[in-house]
Amino acid sequence: MERFGRLFAYIDEKRRLVDRWLDNFVPSEDTPPENLHRAIRYALFPGGKRIRPVLCIAAAEMVGGRAEDVLPVAGAIEMIHTYSLIHDDLPCMDDDDFRRGKPTVHKVFGEALAVLAGDALLTMAFEAMSDVSRYPDPSLPRIVLAVNEIAKAGGSKGMVGGQVADIEGEGDESPTLEKVNYIHSHKTGKMIEVSLRVGALLAGGGYREIEVLSEYGKKIGLAFQIVDDILGEIGDEKKLGKPVKRDRQKSKCTYPAVVGIDESRKRAKELIEEAKRALSIFEDERCWMLKDLADYILERER
Amino acid sequence: MERFGRLFAYIDEKRRLVDRWLDNFVPSEDTPPENLHRAIRYALFPGGKRIRPVLCIAAAEMVGGRAEDVLPVAGAIEMIHTYSLIHDDLPCMDDDDFRRGKPTVHKVFGEALAVLAGDALLTMAFEAMSDVSRYPDPSLPRIVLAVNEIAKAGGSKGMVGGQVADIEGEGDESPTLEKVNYIHSHKTGKMIEVSLRVGALLAGGGYREIEVLSEYGKKIGLAFQIVDDILGEIGDEKKLGKPVKRDRQKSKCTYPAVVGIDESRKRAKELIEEAKRALSIFEDERCWMLKDLADYILERER
Repeated sequence: MERFGRLFAYIDEKRRLVDRWLDNFVPSEDTPPENLHRAIRYALFPGGKRIRPVLCIAAAEMVGGRAEDVLPVAGAIEMIHTYSLIHDDLPCMDDDDFRRGKPTVHKVFGEALAVLAGDALLTMAFEAMSDVSRYPDPSLPRIVLAVNEIAKAGGSKGMVGGQVADIEGEGDESPTLEKVNYIHSHKTGKMIEVSLRVGALLAGGGYREIEVLSEYGKKIGLAFQIVDDILGEIGDEKKLGKPVKRDRQKSKCTYPAVVGIDESRKRAKELIEEAKRALSIFEDERCWMLKDLADYILERER
Repeated sequence: MERFGRLFAYIDEKRRLVDRWLDNFVPSEDTPPENLHRAIRYALFPGGKRIRPVLCIAAAEMVGGRAEDVLPVAGAIEMIHTYSLIHDDLPCMDDDDFRRGKPTVHKVFGEALAVLAGDALLTMAFEAMSDVSRYPDPSLPRIVLAVNEIAKAGGSKGMVGGQVADIEGEGDESPTLEKVNYIHSHKTGKMIEVSLRVGALLAGGGYREIEVLSEYGKKIGLAFQIVDDILGEIGDEKKLGKPVKRDRQKSKCTYPAVVGIDESRKRAKELIEEAKRALSIFEDERCWMLKDLADYILERER
């Protein structure tokens, strides 16, 4: 993992910015209703890899912008991701007791508060994005477009649609590759893709740049999910912070379930190569982070 | 009820506009994932009084605008209202089996789909508001501000916060009036108030007009909820389309529970008078609808 030292340092630096922004934006634990804000903060911090907001910032930098230009949207994207995890973990959905190595929100705060903490986080995300005073140099047309793109990516034809297909696919004896692709590209793909798109958009990127980063996002998003499936099958529980073989127990539609572990690895590798090739319109030196990140997706163990 | 004939005709006309807009905006039942869109449409149509979007349109007209200027936001407000009903009815929340005279979403589609249909509706609401192409004459600063105000009204310090307080207040032996006021002003009040605010805002209203309509909204919002509490206690089940005495069974914090039925009626009446007085900056002829609506809130039986 030594070759990823520069990447980890970059991610760490940006993650810190995102965390500081979120900590500042989200109401404190003594703001009424206290339990709601406690549940929200419990879910948000310390948090996971923050891969979506980091990609959003990286995309902004790729087109010559800065993290500050996109922080409200990067923070919002992480809030949307976090709400989706809280709701996915509910007993009526995936019924998971652990997440990121600690008990899930409904285990600690109860189901009602878990539903409501998710609802509040989703709503708060749109409050953050639309708060013009939080942008150093706001462009209203780009902000409105970013809000619209994120709402589309998170909605019934995006992330939520993917979660529905995932849940309805449980127990499917012979899922098709088409179906698994639909679930992955919607449940995780759309939000990863839009993170890059709106990062570039808000930082003033042009049409071609946005399309290329979109393409890159689509490829690494799917690769990320395939690797997730593989880790869910043969990963190390301690490193992952959650039990493995859960997908298989629930007969989830996963890549390994359809094409096997070896073929899944091969497909992930191809996608990563395609993602890196898509970046060719950018100068080589500018792309190092996105290229290293793509490579890391293949190597990650958690 | 004859004296409200003009009011009902007005509400009917605007409700039809809102319904047509929603029907056009929300994906059809054969859009994948089909079950999700079926659940969403089941919750949205035929729908209830549509009081929030009608107020939004009325506020627009009060400042010289038209329904078309605010339909994306009026529709969004109804989607947010509908998502909140779906989630409130869940077994882990109010556990209600009937709503508007038919089985609740989780009864028909299951809990997982009910959670996700709510999530999708909330997300869709922000997609609708931020879709510039749906406004005949879009003002970006006003659209961004409207999105922000609605997100605030719907979030942890608004509607969701009120629902948390409502649920946490269940079983409270001696709720205070302060607590009941908090629950009502947040759970229903904030969204009613913001419906009027953003209606006036998007139609080009000035600061003073927006503030006055806000004031009116606050008053009728609370009166509406007090009457709701009274109807929940002594209303007619058939007219309401849901069982009465549910609040008492669950020891909910309601106005009648704290101050009794008579005092609740008196307070609702005062609020309605105050609401009508607040409108004095507008010409008398222009206000008839909002004044009649205020009066009707006191008289309604469902």
